[in-house]
Amino acid sequence: MSTMNHQVRLAARPSGLPRATDWSLTTEEVPEPAEGQFAVAVSHLSIDPAMRGWMNAARSYVPPVEIGAVMRAGAVGRVTASAHPGFAVGDDVYGAFGVQEYATSDGQGVIKIDTSLAAPSTYLGALGTTGLTAYFGLLDTGQLKEGDTVVVSGAAGAVGSVAGQIAKIKGARVIGIAGGPEKCRTLTEELGFDAAIDYRAGNVRQALREQTPRGVNVYFDNVGGEILDDVLTCLARGARVVICGAISQYNETQVRGPANYLMLLVARASMTGMLVFDYQDQYPQATAELAGWLRDGKVVSREHVVHGGVADFPQTLLMLFDGVNTGKLVLALDGS
Amino acid sequence: MSTMNHQVRLAARPSGLPRATDWSLTTEEVPEPAEGQFAVAVSHLSIDPAMRGWMNAARSYVPPVEIGAVMRAGAVGRVTASAHPGFAVGDDVYGAFGVQEYATSDGQGVIKIDTSLAAPSTYLGALGTTGLTAYFGLLDTGQLKEGDTVVVSGAAGAVGSVAGQIAKIKGARVIGIAGGPEKCRTLTEELGFDAAIDYRAGNVRQALREQTPRGVNVYFDNVGGEILDDVLTCLARGARVVICGAISQYNETQVRGPANYLMLLVARASMTGMLVFDYQDQYPQATAELAGWLRDGKVVSREHVVHGGVADFPQTLLMLFDGVNTGKLVLALDGS
Repeated sequence: MSTMNHQVRLAARPSGLPRATDWSLTTEEVPEPAEGQFAVAVSHLSIDPAMRGWMNAARSYVPPVEIGAVMRAGAVGRVTASAHPGFAVGDDVYGAFGVQEYATSDGQGVIKIDTSLAAPSTYLGALGTTGLTAYFGLLDTGQLKEGDTVVVSGAAGAVGSVAGQIAKIKGARVIGIAGGPEKCRTLTEELGFDAAIDYRAGNVRQALREQTPRGVNVYFDNVGGEILDDVLTCLARGARVVICGAISQYNETQVRGPANYLMLLVARASMTGMLVFDYQDQYPQATAELAGWLRDGKVVSREHVVHGGVADFPQTLLMLFDGVNTGKLVLALDGS
Repeated sequence: MSTMNHQVRLAARPSGLPRATDWSLTTEEVPEPAEGQFAVAVSHLSIDPAMRGWMNAARSYVPPVEIGAVMRAGAVGRVTASAHPGFAVGDDVYGAFGVQEYATSDGQGVIKIDTSLAAPSTYLGALGTTGLTAYFGLLDTGQLKEGDTVVVSGAAGAVGSVAGQIAKIKGARVIGIAGGPEKCRTLTEELGFDAAIDYRAGNVRQALREQTPRGVNVYFDNVGGEILDDVLTCLARGARVVICGAISQYNETQVRGPANYLMLLVARASMTGMLVFDYQDQYPQATAELAGWLRDGKVVSREHVVHGGVADFPQTLLMLFDGVNTGKLVLALDGS
């Protein structure tokens, strides 16, 4: 008897927040892998703000997900059948397997993971592209130096929570911006941030002035919008603004540009966009360093794991934009 | 009989375009220079977009001009009396002498100029901070490389016209953006730009796509606003956006932020603010290089000289925002 594969496909390009009608659920037989291919049973889906961008038709750093295609997603799974010399049944793997229960792969972009060292979901979090984004964004793009004052927005989110911890390891003073007192408590009490600013409490600019009397040397931005404008007014001379994301803007039909961008001139500061994929040749060294920090307890990997089926993906994605998750949002496919 | 000094002082902080009532005209006796000071008869005033920013109360890279103070201005003049060991009567000098006929100086920030090598107004243009801004903005901040595609906005303006010419010297393909067919003709026929885009003709984005098929490597921005947003959609991977100014926004009560700033992420590009004053220790070498290019005809210094008195300053300043000038706008104090 053949195995059936449930999938979530993009049915329409959303305007604003994705709606149920933007998705379609399909069911296919899992094919036998052809020569040079293998099949993967997906166990954990990475739920990322960037997914919203992939749903748009506009030019970006990857092609848009085509209408009718399985939604793109990073995922962890286990090889269930293989006609590929490099992958054997039982191997645990990470790859861009998509929002589906089974994926067929030729191995491109797939890496083996060791689930005896860390939970599968951690390979989507601190040990995955999430952690690597924080790592390279802060250390390469942000050129973090010991003694710097670092501000991280979306600080309780997947990338932000790791970025703040790496900044602490490197000797910076770290202020996180997050939504709500609970997340702020997590930042200071569990993740070692020096201070946290609750943007929902209002007056972020005033709080920043109090927390960064000598100005901000590195701003790691995951949110854009008004908070970016607030931080721009607090830049120290020569500051580096790392543009990692802009979750506050992803569902806006008209993006709010940073009206205070001329503070870059006042502060002789830079604003630089980064993408983790540019650092692939350095992944092994960085992953080893991140694994060491995790093992030593210097980095805590927070994952917010939702248990369900692929049909729960649309609702799970919306949690990101509601700011429900603390740490990496993961959909674990262990039943619905 | 004592000599009288006519001055233009800031009377009120403008909202939008400066109005006549934002200025006051005063007359004072020129004092005898005290020990360590000298007096300068100002001959040429530098009229700069940055002046508009100095009139605001907001934090910036220099303190605001105080209400009641003589308006800040770079200027060229001749020493008329001296009790300073380093400056003698008859010396031609450049300094921040302000919008007045006579200045008293202790020599700080004042440099001697050789008016046998170039006209006084050229020391406010290609051989002054204007030329130096273009030089360091392009070569240091912009990290221009041979073969780059460079776009310059405000290309017929003081800084832009020099920036484009330096980019050509360094082996770049250079596209200038300017207002009106006459300025565009000047760019391509007199200043050696490879192409010019008339933003008043509309559809800058389409013209940019045609002129920069491989994308923009360096964007030297003097204007901000919609044009900045247009260029952001055309960045090549790793592009450098140099924020030198934003003349389109200086009179706006609400600055338009670049809504397309996330293209920095898509292109892994940077946007960096620069101020020429940070390069003071490199002025001599850069000025010598600029002087060589001028002498060899590789750089043409365009100056738009208005003849009048200090009382003509308010109207002359407005010419910048009307886009009247091609090249450096200078007010020559040779009668009214």
